[in-house]
Amino acid sequence: MNQVQKGKIICAPATSGGGAIALIRVSGQGAVETLSEIFQPADNQIDITKAKGYSLILGTISSHDEFIDQVLVSVFRAPHSYTGEEMVEISCHASPFIQHRIIEILIEKGVETAAPGEFTMRAFMNGKMDLSQAEAVADIIAADSEAAHRLAASQLRGGFSAGIEKLRHELVTFASLIELELDFSEEDVQFANRFAMTETVIKIKDMVDRLASSFRLGNAIRKGIPVVIAGRPNVGKSSLLNLLLQEERAIVSDIPGTTRDTIEEVLHLGGLLFRFIDTAGLREGGDEIEELGMERTRSKLRAAEVVLAVAEATDTDESIAALAASIGEITGNSGARLIVLVNKSDLITRKRIAELKRELKDICPCPALFVSASQSEGIEQVRKQLIASVETGKLDNPQYIVTNARHYEALKNVSDSLRRVLDGFRDGIPTVLIATDVRQSIYYLGQITGRITPDDILGEIFSKFCIGK
Amino acid sequence: MNQVQKGKIICAPATSGGGAIALIRVSGQGAVETLSEIFQPADNQIDITKAKGYSLILGTISSHDEFIDQVLVSVFRAPHSYTGEEMVEISCHASPFIQHRIIEILIEKGVETAAPGEFTMRAFMNGKMDLSQAEAVADIIAADSEAAHRLAASQLRGGFSAGIEKLRHELVTFASLIELELDFSEEDVQFANRFAMTETVIKIKDMVDRLASSFRLGNAIRKGIPVVIAGRPNVGKSSLLNLLLQEERAIVSDIPGTTRDTIEEVLHLGGLLFRFIDTAGLREGGDEIEELGMERTRSKLRAAEVVLAVAEATDTDESIAALAASIGEITGNSGARLIVLVNKSDLITRKRIAELKRELKDICPCPALFVSASQSEGIEQVRKQLIASVETGKLDNPQYIVTNARHYEALKNVSDSLRRVLDGFRDGIPTVLIATDVRQSIYYLGQITGRITPDDILGEIFSKFCIGK
Repeated sequence: MNQVQKGKIICAPATSGGGAIALIRVSGQGAVETLSEIFQPADNQIDITKAKGYSLILGTISSHDEFIDQVLVSVFRAPHSYTGEEMVEISCHASPFIQHRIIEILIEKGVETAAPGEFTMRAFMNGKMDLSQAEAVADIIAADSEAAHRLAASQLRGGFSAGIEKLRHELVTFASLIELELDFSEEDVQFANRFAMTETVIKIKDMVDRLASSFRLGNAIRKGIPVVIAGRPNVGKSSLLNLLLQEERAIVSDIPGTTRDTIEEVLHLGGLLFRFIDTAGLREGGDEIEELGMERTRSKLRAAEVVLAVAEATDTDESIAALAASIGEITGNSGARLIVLVNKSDLITRKRIAELKRELKDICPCPALFVSASQSEGIEQVRKQLIASVETGKLDNPQYIVTNARHYEALKNVSDSLRRVLDGFRDGIPTVLIATDVRQSIYYLGQITGRITPDDILGEIFSKFCIGK
Repeated sequence: MNQVQKGKIICAPATSGGGAIALIRVSGQGAVETLSEIFQPADNQIDITKAKGYSLILGTISSHDEFIDQVLVSVFRAPHSYTGEEMVEISCHASPFIQHRIIEILIEKGVETAAPGEFTMRAFMNGKMDLSQAEAVADIIAADSEAAHRLAASQLRGGFSAGIEKLRHELVTFASLIELELDFSEEDVQFANRFAMTETVIKIKDMVDRLASSFRLGNAIRKGIPVVIAGRPNVGKSSLLNLLLQEERAIVSDIPGTTRDTIEEVLHLGGLLFRFIDTAGLREGGDEIEELGMERTRSKLRAAEVVLAVAEATDTDESIAALAASIGEITGNSGARLIVLVNKSDLITRKRIAELKRELKDICPCPALFVSASQSEGIEQVRKQLIASVETGKLDNPQYIVTNARHYEALKNVSDSLRRVLDGFRDGIPTVLIATDVRQSIYYLGQITGRITPDDILGEIFSKFCIGK
């Protein structure tokens, strides 16, 4: 890798402004030696240049007799560090001035400021983690729900990589059979039964496709599950949303740094993050499709994982079913799940509720819940239905869920290559051409863990990281 | 101290949101034992409960088989820690979810969340630092200029405390003489020469007053030196300000977290932070004092450390002098330094500049600088004059500069008590009454370092800290 030069020492703050303590990371061969020029241990018996890995040393940082701060220094020796290189971490007081000065005098000593993600990139380059694990580092920092954290944690610990490696192994085994045939192609030998080979490819492609299809769920979990609220004005969409969010606000507010710069409302339920997207001005009734024709509303609905269709208890069963049908027409086979919420249930009798429930059961294919925003009734049911609408069962095997768009693209490419292999078998294409597609499928799969990765892809992956990581 | 209970373990995040890494601090007897319930060292030969102080251990935090994060744990043993208690610092990925979960499971294990400043308060209670040093911790974190940092660093390292202790020692010596006299009061003995005693008190009071008077400078350095820009509209105040700030913006922008939520513009010059405060609608001319009569403008000018009075080169020397005089009347003996800036110097000839300079020298008591905002001329001179207007020489002895309003109040009280002692000597007041004032002066001085400090003052001091410190 040309981005990482041997012996180049990099530094960066690993914490962001504010707080009581700040951490500055320094990595590269000679990091400890360089630090020793500006760091005096409190115990003058200690020689930091001789410190073993995993030493923690108290002392002061100063430059030309200018006292800068009392700090705690952690020493790591290659390869037992985050980057796999010699490293020091300086824990100082979180003053912008102090951080700035420490980095300034490190630069005076020849240390360079790190690019975003450069620490993790070095970890990858030094074989401390594969590419999908490195990507999980960024994900685990950004994870803001239990499910997103579980996916990232599993990926970071190599669960996902192991799954990909298993697939890759099967492909490589298959490829070796094909290559063997090529070596003996002049003799026109077919070593393996083409039928058995087709079966193998179908099996692998099936696994690849299943992984790729998990991206919709994985991405939704990572970014928050999009829930679109639809219904005509004044049916109580906002009141329902406020009721849903009520407890959540209290839960979120006591974690420092969780406030999000988003106009959407978010809700944590059952370890999942739901993002609520409002659509204004949707009217019920099958003949109103023109009214919702605006492409914005259509695309929001199609991108939704869940649609909450809000109607009123005083509506007829036909008009409620029509609302559901008109939404269903738009979402089509996008995979969005529809939940009908019949609001203002306090305005009708229990008898009428039971009746309406029966009627809807027959003519509406989706679950219908009766709620009353004004009386705060039925909200718990909505929460349960929201959780149930996500296939949380799949989360028990987080290693088989794709969360990263780059991995998804790679899997799609693998699948395309394998389809071409199958077509080739069917059409009796020469083995030499089939072998090309097999090699390509292995190449694409290798991109995920970084077994085969062009430099430009690497640069792109790590530039999305924050500085200091 | 009733706020700190023995055996109560506290925890808090020590870094703020964002960044790559977050630090969670845990302090109190049993902190390591508690952590061991949720932490598994990567090297399973390691038993964290047996770890020595200053150990650094890699491992994972999990709860009921739920993997939470891979972390680095620093172990500190009492009394060799920040608080003087057993401590652990958990360095985890900076995800809000992870931080929240770790604190959550620590709480499950009986750890309590720390109040703001509680870690430093414990350090004070355990004798790790005196009160003025503890206060310097908050100051050093907030310091955003070199001078402010130097003052806070000197205070943190005990320089200021040493100065106060020296004063206190002199007062105590003096007090013991007075008390001795009291013991023998029935015999009507005067051990010490009253004249010599008066001299001693005058000497001490002088030092106290000099310290107290340094508060204006110290406070200005800590908070930024207020510079008010005055002058009638369209003389080029904004252009001059922009020119002054030009380089600064670039310098500030590369330090993360330095953006300040203030409407004032700030400028770093010569290690000092200047805060520029604009006053609109000030007209030159002695007869215009009514126009600037608004109390807001007056109070801004009085609170200024420096006033930049901006005039135009085409103005007469009398009108410039009148502007300076009208400002001088308002600032009075507030100590504000006035600098006259004659802008648009490019509009007049060099001969006229020399002439105007001579004229102003005779009728205006303050420095006058000729600048041209449009031609970017003379700005360097303004910068130098700004730095020169602050008595930076005093910064060579930062231990004699008061930065804290509480210390200032205490010193004022010491001075008042000593004045009463002097009055008593002069008026021949009985020694028993004089002794009361001497004791009070010692009490007030002791408040600064915490030798004598009521509980309520302590609570107030530490509540201003950030969480995790």
